[in-house]
Amino acid sequence: MKAKIYITLKNGVHDPQGEAVLGTLKHLGFEGVQGVRVGKYIELNLNGVSKEQTQTQVRSMCEKLLANTVIESYSFEIVEQ
Amino acid sequence: MKAKIYITLKNGVHDPQGEAVLGTLKHLGFEGVQGVRVGKYIELNLNGVSKEQTQTQVRSMCEKLLANTVIESYSFEIVEQ
Repeated sequence: MKAKIYITLKNGVHDPQGEAVLGTLKHLGFEGVQGVRVGKYIELNLNGVSKEQTQTQVRSMCEKLLANTVIESYSFEIVEQ
Repeated sequence: MKAKIYITLKNGVHDPQGEAVLGTLKHLGFEGVQGVRVGKYIELNLNGVSKEQTQTQVRSMCEKLLANTVIESYSFEIVEQ
């Protein structure tokens, strides 16, 4: 099974990397861009267990390691292969 | 309009960050994890133009700045708000 995890900074948290990208995009002539937020995308390959167990495991991985839940939100989807 | 961009390392490109995450997940007891790939997730807010024009613009942004197309692949979706 594959898990696709999206980790984003919470609203209101300062994102200097996003601001740098925004500035460069404008500099390159993309004037229509109004905001940029940069997050992480993580793909996991997992074996074995049921979809429900996988969801529980992935949530636990996000809470314990993958996301800093003070400043980041996460969402994920499980894809059966 | 909002663009959601997913940037991943191409297959075969070494991913030390993913390997570090994999090692830590196993250390935490998540034995079922077999592989981890870490990429980027970028959200853009764009104003104005049509969905088709936005797609063209976002593709251009990925090629010129957001992705290193030598080692990274990108995909994106445009969401009308």
